Amino acid sequence: MAKDLQAASYDNLRRLIDPKAIAVIGASPREGSFGKRVLENLVGFDGRVYPVNSRYETIDGQRCYAGLGDLPETPDCAVIVVGRNNVLEIVESCAEFGVGGVVIFASGFGETAKPEDIAVQAQLTEIANTSGIRIVGPNCLGVINIGSGAAMTFQVAPRKVTPWPRGSIGVISQSGALGIALSQATERSCSLSHVLTSGNSCDVDITDYIEFLVDDESCRAIACAFEGVRDASKLINAAFRAAAVEKPLIVYKMAASDGGAAAAMSHSGTFAGSHDACCASLRRAGAVVVDSIDAMMETAAFFCKAPLVPQGNGVAVLTTSGGASIIAADTAEKHEVPLPPLAPSTHATLAARVPDFGSVGNPSDVTAQVVNDPEMFNECASAMMKDEAFSALVTPHVLALDFAIPRIVQMNEIARKANKIVCNVWISEWTSGPGARESEEAGHVAWFRTMDRCFATLAAWKSSAEARARIGKPKRRVSSPDAKKIGARLLADANGAMTERASKELLAAYGINVAQDYVVTSVEEALSMASRLGGAVVLKGEVQGLAHKSEAGLVRLNLRQPDEIAAEFANVRAALDALDDNGCGRIILQPMIPQGIEIMVGGRVDPQFGPMLVLGLGGILVELVKDTTLEVAPVDRETAAEMISRLRCQDIFDGFRHLPAVDRGALADVICRFSELLSDHADLISEIDVNPLICSADSIIAVDGFINCATRSGIGENQKDE
Amino acid sequence: MAKDLQAASYDNLRRLIDPKAIAVIGASPREGSFGKRVLENLVGFDGRVYPVNSRYETIDGQRCYAGLGDLPETPDCAVIVVGRNNVLEIVESCAEFGVGGVVIFASGFGETAKPEDIAVQAQLTEIANTSGIRIVGPNCLGVINIGSGAAMTFQVAPRKVTPWPRGSIGVISQSGALGIALSQATERSCSLSHVLTSGNSCDVDITDYIEFLVDDESCRAIACAFEGVRDASKLINAAFRAAAVEKPLIVYKMAASDGGAAAAMSHSGTFAGSHDACCASLRRAGAVVVDSIDAMMETAAFFCKAPLVPQGNGVAVLTTSGGASIIAADTAEKHEVPLPPLAPSTHATLAARVPDFGSVGNPSDVTAQVVNDPEMFNECASAMMKDEAFSALVTPHVLALDFAIPRIVQMNEIARKANKIVCNVWISEWTSGPGARESEEAGHVAWFRTMDRCFATLAAWKSSAEARARIGKPKRRVSSPDAKKIGARLLADANGAMTERASKELLAAYGINVAQDYVVTSVEEALSMASRLGGAVVLKGEVQGLAHKSEAGLVRLNLRQPDEIAAEFANVRAALDALDDNGCGRIILQPMIPQGIEIMVGGRVDPQFGPMLVLGLGGILVELVKDTTLEVAPVDRETAAEMISRLRCQDIFDGFRHLPAVDRGALADVICRFSELLSDHADLISEIDVNPLICSADSIIAVDGFINCATRSGIGENQKDE
Repeated sequence: MAKDLQAASYDNLRRLIDPKAIAVIGASPREGSFGKRVLENLVGFDGRVYPVNSRYETIDGQRCYAGLGDLPETPDCAVIVVGRNNVLEIVESCAEFGVGGVVIFASGFGETAKPEDIAVQAQLTEIANTSGIRIVGPNCLGVINIGSGAAMTFQVAPRKVTPWPRGSIGVISQSGALGIALSQATERSCSLSHVLTSGNSCDVDITDYIEFLVDDESCRAIACAFEGVRDASKLINAAFRAAAVEKPLIVYKMAASDGGAAAAMSHSGTFAGSHDACCASLRRAGAVVVDSIDAMMETAAFFCKAPLVPQGNGVAVLTTSGGASIIAADTAEKHEVPLPPLAPSTHATLAARVPDFGSVGNPSDVTAQVVNDPEMFNECASAMMKDEAFSALVTPHVLALDFAIPRIVQMNEIARKANKIVCNVWISEWTSGPGARESEEAGHVAWFRTMDRCFATLAAWKSSAEARARIGKPKRRVSSPDAKKIGARLLADANGAMTERASKELLAAYGINVAQDYVVTSVEEALSMASRLGGAVVLKGEVQGLAHKSEAGLVRLNLRQPDEIAAEFANVRAALDALDDNGCGRIILQPMIPQGIEIMVGGRVDPQFGPMLVLGLGGILVELVKDTTLEVAPVDRETAAEMISRLRCQDIFDGFRHLPAVDRGALADVICRFSELLSDHADLISEIDVNPLICSADSIIAVDGFINCATRSGIGENQKDE
Repeated sequence: MAKDLQAASYDNLRRLIDPKAIAVIGASPREGSFGKRVLENLVGFDGRVYPVNSRYETIDGQRCYAGLGDLPETPDCAVIVVGRNNVLEIVESCAEFGVGGVVIFASGFGETAKPEDIAVQAQLTEIANTSGIRIVGPNCLGVINIGSGAAMTFQVAPRKVTPWPRGSIGVISQSGALGIALSQATERSCSLSHVLTSGNSCDVDITDYIEFLVDDESCRAIACAFEGVRDASKLINAAFRAAAVEKPLIVYKMAASDGGAAAAMSHSGTFAGSHDACCASLRRAGAVVVDSIDAMMETAAFFCKAPLVPQGNGVAVLTTSGGASIIAADTAEKHEVPLPPLAPSTHATLAARVPDFGSVGNPSDVTAQVVNDPEMFNECASAMMKDEAFSALVTPHVLALDFAIPRIVQMNEIARKANKIVCNVWISEWTSGPGARESEEAGHVAWFRTMDRCFATLAAWKSSAEARARIGKPKRRVSSPDAKKIGARLLADANGAMTERASKELLAAYGINVAQDYVVTSVEEALSMASRLGGAVVLKGEVQGLAHKSEAGLVRLNLRQPDEIAAEFANVRAALDALDDNGCGRIILQPMIPQGIEIMVGGRVDPQFGPMLVLGLGGILVELVKDTTLEVAPVDRETAAEMISRLRCQDIFDGFRHLPAVDRGALADVICRFSELLSDHADLISEIDVNPLICSADSIIAVDGFINCATRSGIGENQKDE
C-alpha cells in the first residue's frame, strides 16, 4: 500500500467509526426489515442520515435517494443492507464515490469455506487495499459509536448511559452477536463508548479497532473478545500502544481448547495451539487477559473506574456479615491478593465503633448492627481508605435493599476523595435488585457479581501495572554480544536437528554451563577418559536429529567400574547399530553430574507470536504434571524470577527436604541467557530444549540440549516425538 | 437424651419449621423495630400469630398478649425478638409452657468468645437437651417456611414464587445474612420452599435442617452453605439419607483457605484443614459440592428441574452465534463433558434446515438467520433432544430480547416431552433482561449466568449420580478377613511410629507386595546377604519414628560391588550414630527394586471425618506439584480406578515415553487393600504413608512404609516433618 493511501486509509477508519454523514444503502420502510431497523437505530444520531434505495421516494417522510450520486454530500460511511449478491458492486461504487468506509452485514462469504464465496471476499479485500476505503465485515453486526449515536447495526442498539468520570468502555468483538451481548451491559448502566464488531474481517480487524480506541478520548478501557488474528505482531504492537498511553486493554481470547480451536479454525483459519502464546504476548504488553466472557465487562468497568496503578500493597475488606468475611478471605488467598493488617490508628478507629460480636481486622465485620447504625460503616470505610496499606476496599453487598443505596453513594465519595476504589461485590442472588444500578453508575465503585472475579481483577490490576512498568525499562543483555555471531555460525552449519554436542556448544557460547563431553571411539578410549576424569561417568549414543535418547536405550548413567563401562559401551554401540543410522552415531562420555533439581528450559518459535520461552519441572514429568510457564523471549532478570515463582513446584528451590537450596538469581540468569539465544536466532530455530538443567547449591549445568532448526518451510524436518 | 425426649425433639423441629401457631415475643408497633418487622413478615402466614408484649394491649388492631400464659393455645414456635439479656429467661419459660421451638435473633453469645457469653449459650443448649424444645440461633436470621408463609425473620422475606413441577429449593445457611442473600433469588422467580438459618447453632444446626428437608415434599433439592459442623458423622449420615431418597444436596463449604478457616475457627471452633476431607466425604455420599456461593442457586435450580440421572453420554449444543459455539466447546472440554457427534438422522434433520453459512455438528450454529426463521431453532432442538446420545441441550442465550421469549417456552416443552433438560446459558450482560425471568420460571429449562457454571453442573450431574449408584452396591472386601486380626496384633505392639519393617509386615498382611528386607549387623553379613540375593542392593538405616530416611543420610541405593557395599555400610552406621538413637537403629538390606513409576499412597485419620485416603505422584514431588486426590477409606475398585484417573499425571500409567505401561486394575487393587488397612484400624492409626510404591509392567511393590499410631490424645507422638 502506498504511503498516502495508507494515511487515507487511517483517515477513512475515523470517518467510518465517527462519521458525520451516513448512507443506508438498502433502506426500507418495511417493519422488521434490516433496512428499517438500521434507520430506527440511527434516529438519535447527531449527524446526517441518507436513506438510499431506488424503490422509494421517501421513507417515513424522509427523502430516500436512488443512488449515491444523488446525495447532497459524499457520506463518510455507507451501511450496506442488501443481500450478498449485490454487495460487491455497491462496495465498488462506494469506493469510486470516495466514501470513507462501508459496513457489510450480509453473510455467505469466506465463512462458508466455499471457493466461490472466498473469492468474492478476496475481491472486497482487494478493493480496500487499492482504494483505501475501509470495509467492516462481511458477516458482522456493524459499528456503534455511542457518543454520536451512530448505531450502524440492524441489531438492538445499546443505551446511552451517563459516562463515568474517567471514561467509558470501548467494546471490540470479532463475533457480532457477542459484541451486542456485551453491549447490553448498558441496560444495567454500564457506560460504553463504542461497540465495534469485525465479523469476517476482510479488511478492518480487531487490531484496527484497538488502534482507533487507543486514540479515542471517550474510551477509558478497551474490552476485546476474539478468536484469532491474521497478523499477530500488529495486534501485539497495538497492545503496546495502549500500554504506552496507559489505556487498559482487557482481552478475552476464545478458542482455548482443541474443540474451540477447531470451531475457530474452520471459521477464521486461526492456528490452533497459539492460544497460550497469544495470551503470554498480550500480558507482556500490559494487557489484562480474562478467561471468560462473563468477566469482560466487570473487569473493564473496574479499569474505567480505578486509578491506573494500585497504591498500597494489598486491599481491605469490610463486611456486614461474618459469612461474607470468610468468603472474601478464601478468595483473596486463592488469587494471592494480600489482606495486610490494619495500621494501629485504623484499628483503633474501628475498635471504637464495631460491636463486640463483630470483628476488627482484615476482614472487618461490622455485623447487621449497621441497620441500627449506618454511619458506622462509613466511618470504618473512611478509616480503611486512608490507610496506606490498601489500594482498594472490598465491600461485599450481601442484601439488595433500598436501605443500602445511600451507603453506595457514600462509598463512591470516600473512594473519590482517596483516589482509590471501592469494589462492591454483589452477594445477593437478586442481581438487578436495589443498589445494583447505583453501584454501576458510581464512578469510583466497581461492581462485581462474584467474589472470585473481584479478586481476580485486583490481582490483574497489580500484575498489569507491573508489566507496563517493565515495558519502559531499558533491557540489559545478559549474554555476551559475541554470542549472537558464534550462534549464527553454529546454526548455519546445522541441517535440521543439531547434535547434542553442537547444541551444547551453542549454549556454552551464551554463557550457560554445560556438561563436558568427549567422543570415545573404543572401549579403551572410554576407559582412559573415565580414569582421567575420575568419579562416575555417563555414556551416551548420539545420533543427529534424535531428541529422546533414553527411549532408544542410548543413555547409561552413573558408571564407575571399568567392567561396567566396557559392558555398557558395547550395549550403547549395539543400540546405535539397531537404529540403522548408517554408522553416523557416535558414543560420547561425560562426567556424571551429581544429583540436583532437574529443570526444563525450552523454547519454540510460534508461527504467529515468535519466540516463546517455557520453564518447567524437568525430566519426563514436565509433560505429565504440566507445571510449566510461558513467556515471550527474551526475558529480563525480573521476568525470569517471576517465571520461577509462577511454578507450582517453586518451593523446591528453597531447600526442600534434603535437596539443596538453589540460587534463584543464578537460575534467572541462565533463563535470561537461554531466552536471548532463542530470540537472537528465532529465524533459524524452530524449537530448543534443555532437559534436564541440573540445579544444585553451587552450580547450574545443562546436561542435555536439543536444538531443531527451521527449514525453509518454517518447520523443522526432525520433529520431536511429543 | 432419653429416647422419648429425642422423639419429642424431632417432633418439635417439625413444629418449629412448619408451625400452625406462632408467638412473637417482643412484638412491637414501632416502625422499623425488629418486633414490628417480624409481624409484617408474618402477614401472609396461613396459621395463627400471637404478638406477646406486656407493654401493649393491641398492635395494629390485633390483640397483644402480656405473656405466654395468656395465649389461647400453646404456640408451636416462639420467635424471640428481645435483647440478649432477656433471652434465657424467655426460653426457659417457653420450655415450661411446652412450646415446640424458639428462634433467637439476638447476638452477643458464643460468637463474642467471652466466657460469660459462652456460658449463657451453653445454658441454652442445656435447656434444649433436657426439655426437648428446639432452639434456633442465637445470632441468626430465623426460619422461613415459604409454603405456609411462616417467615420468621426480621429481615426481608423472600417472595413466594409458583413452584416448579418437580419441587423447589430448600436453602440452609449457617450464616443468616448469606441465607437471606440466597433467598433473594425469588426476586428473579427462582422457586424456594424454605430458608433455614442456624447462626451459632446452640441446638439446631445445618444437619438438623438437612434431615428435615429430606422428608419435606415441597423441597426437591437442598442448597446448603456452611463453615463447619460439630458432628461430622451426623452431617455425612444426613447426606446419605438425602441420597437414599434421591434428593439432590448441593453444598458450598466455606473456609477452604487458611485465612477463611481462621475466620471460621474464631467463630465456630471448626478444625482447620478438614475442608478437603469434608468435601470428599460429602461427594462420597452423593452430594454436589460447589466451589462458590454464586454457584449455589443456579446449581440447585438445575437439580430441581433436571431428571435425577442423566440419560445419554453427553450433551448437545445449539447456538445462534459462532462465537457462542466456540465458548461452549472450550468450556465443555475444560469440564470434560463430552459433546458426541449427532446421530446420522439428527444430522440430516439439521443439515436440511441450517443455512450454509451456519454449521451442523456439535455444537451446531443456526446463525442469526433464526431472526427470519424462528421455527428452525425449535426443529433443530427437537431433533437433538430425541437423539439418544444427549442427556441435555445447551442453548447459549446471546441477546436479551422479547423476540427470544417464545423460544424459551418452546424449549421448555421440548425438554418436558423428552424428559430431559435444556440449559439456557445467559451470555447477554443484561442479566435481568427479557427472557431471564421466563427461563427461571420454566420447569424444564435451567438458567445459567455463565457457561462455566453450566458445564460444571452438567459434570456434577453425572458424577453425583454415579456416586449415588455406588452407595447401593454391596462392597466386596479385597484383602483377606484375617488381615484385620494380624493388623490389630501388629499395631498393638507398636508404640507411636512403627519401624519400616513392621509397617511393611502390616502391608504384606493386607496382600500388598513389599520389598523384602534383612537386618544385617555387620559388613560380613551384608556382603553375604547381597551375594545371596544377587543384583544391586539397598542399604538403609532404620530408626523407630523417623519418617524421612533420605534426609538423614540413611539410604544408599543401587549398590553392586562388595567394596561399595562395605563402604556404605560404614557410612550408614555413622549416620545412625550421628542421630544419637541410643543404639536402637538397625541396618537393613534390600534388593534394589528396578526403576518404575513411583506412586505415593497415604492416609490420615481426620479428627472429624475419619479415615481419608490420598493418592499421588510419588517421591518428594508429591508435595510440590500437589498432584494428589483424596477419598474416604475404604474404596472399592471402581473408586480406586477413578482416583487414578483423577491424577493430572495419569497418562504416566499408559506407557508414557520409555516407561512401562502399568496395569491400572492391579494398581486399583493395591489401593483398595491399602484403604481397607486404613479403615480397619482407623482407631489406632493416625497416619500412614507408602512412598514410593514402585509400579512396573508386571509388579507393584511398596519399597518403603511409614505408619504412625494414634496415642491416647488422638494424635501421633512422632509427627512427620511435613
